[in-house]
Amino acid sequence: MTMQALFFEGGRAGVREVRKPVPARGFALVRVLLSGICNTDFELRRGYHGFSGIPGHEFVGRVEGPAGSPWLGKRIVGEINLGCGRCDWCGRGLGRHCARRRVLGILGHPGAHAELLTLPEKNLHEVPGEIPDEEAVFTEPLAAACEILDQVAVGKETRAAVLGAGKLGTLCAAVLENAGADVALLRRGSRARPRSFDLVIEATGSPDGMPRAIALVRPRGTIVWKSTHHAPARFDAAPLVVNEVTVVGSRCGRFEPALEHLRGRRIDVRPLLAAEFPLARAGRALAEAARPGVRKVLLRPGA
Amino acid sequence: MTMQALFFEGGRAGVREVRKPVPARGFALVRVLLSGICNTDFELRRGYHGFSGIPGHEFVGRVEGPAGSPWLGKRIVGEINLGCGRCDWCGRGLGRHCARRRVLGILGHPGAHAELLTLPEKNLHEVPGEIPDEEAVFTEPLAAACEILDQVAVGKETRAAVLGAGKLGTLCAAVLENAGADVALLRRGSRARPRSFDLVIEATGSPDGMPRAIALVRPRGTIVWKSTHHAPARFDAAPLVVNEVTVVGSRCGRFEPALEHLRGRRIDVRPLLAAEFPLARAGRALAEAARPGVRKVLLRPGA
Repeated sequence: MTMQALFFEGGRAGVREVRKPVPARGFALVRVLLSGICNTDFELRRGYHGFSGIPGHEFVGRVEGPAGSPWLGKRIVGEINLGCGRCDWCGRGLGRHCARRRVLGILGHPGAHAELLTLPEKNLHEVPGEIPDEEAVFTEPLAAACEILDQVAVGKETRAAVLGAGKLGTLCAAVLENAGADVALLRRGSRARPRSFDLVIEATGSPDGMPRAIALVRPRGTIVWKSTHHAPARFDAAPLVVNEVTVVGSRCGRFEPALEHLRGRRIDVRPLLAAEFPLARAGRALAEAARPGVRKVLLRPGA
Repeated sequence: MTMQALFFEGGRAGVREVRKPVPARGFALVRVLLSGICNTDFELRRGYHGFSGIPGHEFVGRVEGPAGSPWLGKRIVGEINLGCGRCDWCGRGLGRHCARRRVLGILGHPGAHAELLTLPEKNLHEVPGEIPDEEAVFTEPLAAACEILDQVAVGKETRAAVLGAGKLGTLCAAVLENAGADVALLRRGSRARPRSFDLVIEATGSPDGMPRAIALVRPRGTIVWKSTHHAPARFDAAPLVVNEVTVVGSRCGRFEPALEHLRGRRIDVRPLLAAEFPLARAGRALAEAARPGVRKVLLRPGA
């Protein structure tokens, strides 16, 4: 009645035996095939949201319960926000903004760096057969990148800069290129002409990103703010006001367009894969994922 | 060949005799009838933009030169940005975003707290006869408030909060109410339900305003950022990203809708008038305008 899981507590991380989860009504029991380590996991370990529990919100899995579920045996990915189901936001299909939501592996609901997890069946999306597990596990971060296209008009005339050449930044750049934009992926220290970009994606994961984004965006341009970091943002806001810049906070996205991008490799995520570790060696995997410039590190619970 | 003007230099303010300005080609020479003291004037005195010179960018005046100008004798207000006239922004009528612009009484061009000023004739707007001087002098700040309507959709269904019950905040609230919105004008310390406003106007003039705006706006809502302040902004950006809030920097606006609002008193600015001083007593006027909660203080150069 126990399973293996990565557990964060008081700034420490370790793999331990925990009780197997029991799915509530309307929930599926999912065996995790692969989970992905995200920078948010490191923020959680450092104390963002006062987190303690099983982290992990990027995964691909197979439904193995409850008996009689129409999802049984299906290979799935799952949206990570668990809305209350009763408020206006949930009614509009935007449970990801529900004030009482729980979030898989982030807020009040055990996460994916484990042998098993539970999620509401309505959060599940079946993975098309032609997408291998190693690519399907990118659905959640790719959906977050695709969210930009739901928020901002992007086309052939868009000159875009992406700050932060990490995993999220690279996915954002790929999505924008796919939408026709002229994209510069700017690493820390790389130069670009100030005031010259219609659209700047701030995906550095650092409080230094915003001042740089403000310097690069043109007057009346748009900054998409993707970084969540524990340290407060601190910058001179006057250019933002004077140049009438629009800043759009941007987080999770719909899974449908992400799965469409993965099917047929319209976006090829394979170059983003850095390494795969058995879940039992999650400590080593976290150390590897924390190295600067390292791409996606995966955990395989079955191994 | 001299005139009286308020002069800022090295953090000090004083009225002095300076040379009368000579209008360049395409410029009008304007006798100032009234000028208004703005919070930006205090920022300039404190060192914003490393300012030294004649401040003042809110005024109503009468054109008295050059000979032969079609504007001669007309009562006017004037847009404050002087674009280069050659770049893309200027070509699109958005000289207020020209990278090489000068700004009346703010950047590279002597301002309105003086007996005379010069401005390009194309910056001028004739004041309809039914608008008295004491109300016409509000055209520039009212235009800045009206700019919100050019940037954000506002209607009867909009629940709006205005932070900062100063001059700009009061004008913003009036403009939003006029557009049909349900408006709460929130002073420092007044309470309101978190996450409940579609639209929050940050017009506090203080770095404390933004964290409060973030707390009040609903997920996917909009914050219009009006405050320019010398101190850097510092806040926890995570709720902005997680709640996918849009922040819109907002500064100067078109004069036409402001004059329309003043004509027939669709917005009555008279309750905003606090006091009028002769220009010679500008030091006393600044002290009066700096008192907390004081509304618009005017300077009359002719007196």
